[in-house]
Amino acid sequence: MHPSEQERQAFRRRQALFSSWLAESDIFACVLDDFEGLRASSVRWLCGHPMDAILFIFADTRIVLVPWDLNLAREMSTVDEIVPYTDFKRSFREAVIAVLNQRGGGSGGRKVEFAGHTTFLRYRELLEDLPNHEILIRSDGCDARLGALRALKDAQELSSLEKASWITDEVSALATDFLRSSTNGEATEREMAELLEREAVARGAEGMGFETLAAGPDRSWGIHPFPASTRGAFGGRGLSILDFGVKVEGYTSDVTITVARGKLSADQELMIELVEKAYSAALQSARPYASPREPAVKADEIFQAAGWRMPHALGHGIGLDAHERPLLHVQGSGADPTFSPGMVFTIEPGLYHPRHGGVRWENDVLMTEAGPRVLTNARIIRL
Amino acid sequence: MHPSEQERQAFRRRQALFSSWLAESDIFACVLDDFEGLRASSVRWLCGHPMDAILFIFADTRIVLVPWDLNLAREMSTVDEIVPYTDFKRSFREAVIAVLNQRGGGSGGRKVEFAGHTTFLRYRELLEDLPNHEILIRSDGCDARLGALRALKDAQELSSLEKASWITDEVSALATDFLRSSTNGEATEREMAELLEREAVARGAEGMGFETLAAGPDRSWGIHPFPASTRGAFGGRGLSILDFGVKVEGYTSDVTITVARGKLSADQELMIELVEKAYSAALQSARPYASPREPAVKADEIFQAAGWRMPHALGHGIGLDAHERPLLHVQGSGADPTFSPGMVFTIEPGLYHPRHGGVRWENDVLMTEAGPRVLTNARIIRL
Repeated sequence: MHPSEQERQAFRRRQALFSSWLAESDIFACVLDDFEGLRASSVRWLCGHPMDAILFIFADTRIVLVPWDLNLAREMSTVDEIVPYTDFKRSFREAVIAVLNQRGGGSGGRKVEFAGHTTFLRYRELLEDLPNHEILIRSDGCDARLGALRALKDAQELSSLEKASWITDEVSALATDFLRSSTNGEATEREMAELLEREAVARGAEGMGFETLAAGPDRSWGIHPFPASTRGAFGGRGLSILDFGVKVEGYTSDVTITVARGKLSADQELMIELVEKAYSAALQSARPYASPREPAVKADEIFQAAGWRMPHALGHGIGLDAHERPLLHVQGSGADPTFSPGMVFTIEPGLYHPRHGGVRWENDVLMTEAGPRVLTNARIIRL
Repeated sequence: MHPSEQERQAFRRRQALFSSWLAESDIFACVLDDFEGLRASSVRWLCGHPMDAILFIFADTRIVLVPWDLNLAREMSTVDEIVPYTDFKRSFREAVIAVLNQRGGGSGGRKVEFAGHTTFLRYRELLEDLPNHEILIRSDGCDARLGALRALKDAQELSSLEKASWITDEVSALATDFLRSSTNGEATEREMAELLEREAVARGAEGMGFETLAAGPDRSWGIHPFPASTRGAFGGRGLSILDFGVKVEGYTSDVTITVARGKLSADQELMIELVEKAYSAALQSARPYASPREPAVKADEIFQAAGWRMPHALGHGIGLDAHERPLLHVQGSGADPTFSPGMVFTIEPGLYHPRHGGVRWENDVLMTEAGPRVLTNARIIRL
């Protein structure tokens, strides 16, 4: 589990990029916290430590990690200094005061930025605890900067995502074969979810990037079915949806297969036709340096012209999180960053109806200088 | 998936309890939001809707749900009114302004409380959006009230937790049998995790309450191993840890089995002895109307006297969340609520060492007037 030399260098590069932004912005230190209920995978992105920790990044490039699990931090992190959380009685407040003061924060008047997810209640504590600092919590601050940096995948990250895509396609094919061979749709949602996970792990995946969503014809109307999968039937007559991600080295794919079995109603046929049309139009309008809003507008136009409405965004970046930047959404503004080479995101038009069921088609796309490259091979399958 | 009449009544009872507290506290409305990254299972506890929604609870007992997935809300929730999130272009700000104003918030000067997880950035928006309201975000406000209400399980909830406990014991026994029959510890961590999930679902569980943690002798030193399970060996010579929860009707159990195989070192034997001693002492001092701090102090005293330190709390409540109230922690203060009949919580002393591995023993306990009743039957197992 120790990081390779290549991985260490990737972490150091990311840390240097972020530190230099802090220095340019005249920010003394940035404090990122990742705990249950408030996950911040930027901690992992910056130093490799996967969870439950406070990470201090100083403008002078020093990196201090305060982990809940000291042994895990020693094994996985690339930082300058590790201080156990128990040294501060597992108190966020005490850790922040001590680490900032020890690093010369005592001189005061310095800007310290906290993550955008910082609660109002914690903000009030920080005002008390750090009277000599200027506390920043901004929507356009460190979170935005980290989001922008993380949206552009480096070689290390692309390699993980390509492996995840390869395994995704392998297990998708197995799932389809399995359904083809079961003539009456005797498969259960749970069986489908288990098959995907078992076969993905057998091919070297760490696991699934999120809970597999398997919705048979009776409940494919849900955007995200609840519970994620049941012992109910999957792949029988009508429309079934399978939405899953394969995780490799922390990075997750995210695809959706719709399975259409038997003779469909005219409405169901129309839903499939519209989703396929929207998918193609969206993919075609995803061009380097164009706005991520454009494909979403194209898809929505197609749905609206036919009197339908898609109740979710068209797509989103993927990486350590299942939802990253960029966001492909009609409400994006002209100020959004444009598609850049190195971005990896989903395109996933979908339509849902309480009686007819749901159709969603989702693949992962890498933006290159030459245009979008579709990494995965999910499809709407007819049985 | 539609709630039964009994379930509807349970939701109505909870809503009435909470509304009456709002009325007593002179609070016009409470706004709870449950979205990715900021989960708040109190929404589910109050109305049955499982995720991705804003719930408005008014002091006059009216309940309004603004769900992301309208179809899901129609199927699962018990509320007075459902308004689709798309009516507000999926904007939290617009939804809050519209619903509060429509319900007579226009008269102004009324107190509106938001969840304690509300971010500083959102708080600033609320100040702008609701200039005529008094905005409350408190650590001792609605969250504390909901936490206290939820800590006392009603009959509906106890029934789910008892079912979860029963299945937990069944699959624990299967896992132990499986390991006993594999003489060289050929099982992998992943196999153990898969076995538990497969057999739990086969017995009617919804799934697991959290990702199963399976750590073989090489990595049981981690409090929470990362990744949660691998293709590495489990149950071989030394100490292995299996930490899992079975989910029934949304409610999860939470137990940990330590598997000790072969001749152990003196240090490993001491670790087991200390954990067993701490477990027994803690259970004995968990008495109705005593402080949840007491068992934690007892366990820590035993460890400290032997020169060891437990790097986590002794236990926590369980329910819809894997971590609820009460918290069994030495740092609890005298002001904490006492153990009350109806509380369900874990007792889970553990010790960890980078070379010797880890030992943790965790069971779920229901507090009754007559004292603690251990619901599950997890143990430290010798093979």
